[in-house]
Amino acid sequence: MSSGHISFKSIKFVGMMKVTLIGAGNLATQLGKSLKKVGVIISQVYSRTEASAKSLGELLDTEWLTDIAKLHDEADIYIFSVKDSVLCELISEVCKGRGDKLFLHTAGSMPMSCFEGKTKHYGVFYPMQTFSKTKDVNFENIPVFIESNSIETEDAIRRLAYKISKRVITLSSAERKYLHLSAVWACNFTNYCYSVASDLLTQHGIPFDVMLPLIDETTDKIHKISPKEAQTGPAVRGDRNVMNQQLKLMEDREDLQGLYQMLSKGINPHIETLD
Amino acid sequence: MSSGHISFKSIKFVGMMKVTLIGAGNLATQLGKSLKKVGVIISQVYSRTEASAKSLGELLDTEWLTDIAKLHDEADIYIFSVKDSVLCELISEVCKGRGDKLFLHTAGSMPMSCFEGKTKHYGVFYPMQTFSKTKDVNFENIPVFIESNSIETEDAIRRLAYKISKRVITLSSAERKYLHLSAVWACNFTNYCYSVASDLLTQHGIPFDVMLPLIDETTDKIHKISPKEAQTGPAVRGDRNVMNQQLKLMEDREDLQGLYQMLSKGINPHIETLD
Repeated sequence: MSSGHISFKSIKFVGMMKVTLIGAGNLATQLGKSLKKVGVIISQVYSRTEASAKSLGELLDTEWLTDIAKLHDEADIYIFSVKDSVLCELISEVCKGRGDKLFLHTAGSMPMSCFEGKTKHYGVFYPMQTFSKTKDVNFENIPVFIESNSIETEDAIRRLAYKISKRVITLSSAERKYLHLSAVWACNFTNYCYSVASDLLTQHGIPFDVMLPLIDETTDKIHKISPKEAQTGPAVRGDRNVMNQQLKLMEDREDLQGLYQMLSKGINPHIETLD
Repeated sequence: MSSGHISFKSIKFVGMMKVTLIGAGNLATQLGKSLKKVGVIISQVYSRTEASAKSLGELLDTEWLTDIAKLHDEADIYIFSVKDSVLCELISEVCKGRGDKLFLHTAGSMPMSCFEGKTKHYGVFYPMQTFSKTKDVNFENIPVFIESNSIETEDAIRRLAYKISKRVITLSSAERKYLHLSAVWACNFTNYCYSVASDLLTQHGIPFDVMLPLIDETTDKIHKISPKEAQTGPAVRGDRNVMNQQLKLMEDREDLQGLYQMLSKGINPHIETLD
């Protein structure tokens, strides 16, 4: 099969793949750019927010729209990258009358069953990464977790995924939920910890960038040893003296004090209640 | 002045620097290796734990001891890298009768005043990094925060620091406390988040290494944009649907549920109480 060829039992797509993006947020932006780079044609970009639709449409040099009724049928694949809360409703609207198309969503926490009873060929295409509109990522190294409602659909999704990534993994909706939860811990909560560090430093006139070698090494370590083995600091040492001192430094931030205690207790359950 | 030359008002060290390490933990191990590599002579290694003393002594090919009374006076500089709780007592013992020596400690949260009234030449040498005995670090990129009780002492400490690091910064004890607190957030708590992610994945048969590209990108981002700008995920989007779902996935872990709620609230204070 040629690389632009997708086949289902009933239909065949030969030649250039055409994709329509439903949603124009961080993920849609980076995905659209990566797909375009490997020769996929971005047919249309929809977002209910005009600024987002226009901005991504212009970036990808394609038609953009805010009125879902104006979506045309030219694309082979429709990819939903929207807030979970509006996904189901949009799926119903977009799938209607397009039974020959392939529909995918990119949500870590939404099951594939969102599509059930609404169309014939569907699946999930979840590239696990933290996306920002303005910071480009190299999709090659991003693991893409896929799921599909049939073997033939899976084959099509896998080939789409391999166009942009070297790592494509089949995963069920149930497992993907835990993957997404883990990603929140490893990325979103981690970034919040950076944010707290940055605030504390800035308040005391110390530039955040002095922290970067430490942050880099913390990341580098867990490429080589497990996070449990890599754990250092006052909590794992059981150093109550330092912990109590540090709690006092955050006297004006009860929220941070509470978090500090809980995180320390997570690291070392043997820590008694601190002062 | 030659590079091996340290001068105080009253004393002079010319030639090879000789350092004795008080403590044989993670930091002492990495510091000792780095100092030895640049030609500093490691005179003795002390630890009250025989296994640690022996192991580092052998690693650095030098004398090791567990009896502080056997410490000799051959070194120019004595560096304390021990638990905060024993630091003051050890300082009193080691400084006694060694008024011509330079004494340093490497503790982020201990003030320089630990040395006050106990000796003449002293200071702090705090390399901000997460150290493990078994994982070597490149000291060159580690910022070393120094403090001293006189201009002459500072000059000596700075030259010692520049032997192993490209970034040497003078910082007061009061500021260093906040630096250390920030390091706990940016490194120790971050690593704990990795640890939680690892547990969740392992429990569901997913290998932790699928998380590494996401973790690398999370780190890479804050080299280019601030942590606040880099924040992504359900909390900052105000996506209560995902957050409530994820809380349910942790039903058997009340500790993680509590942390999840507090961290999400930290990221987005506008989040109402979750289900």
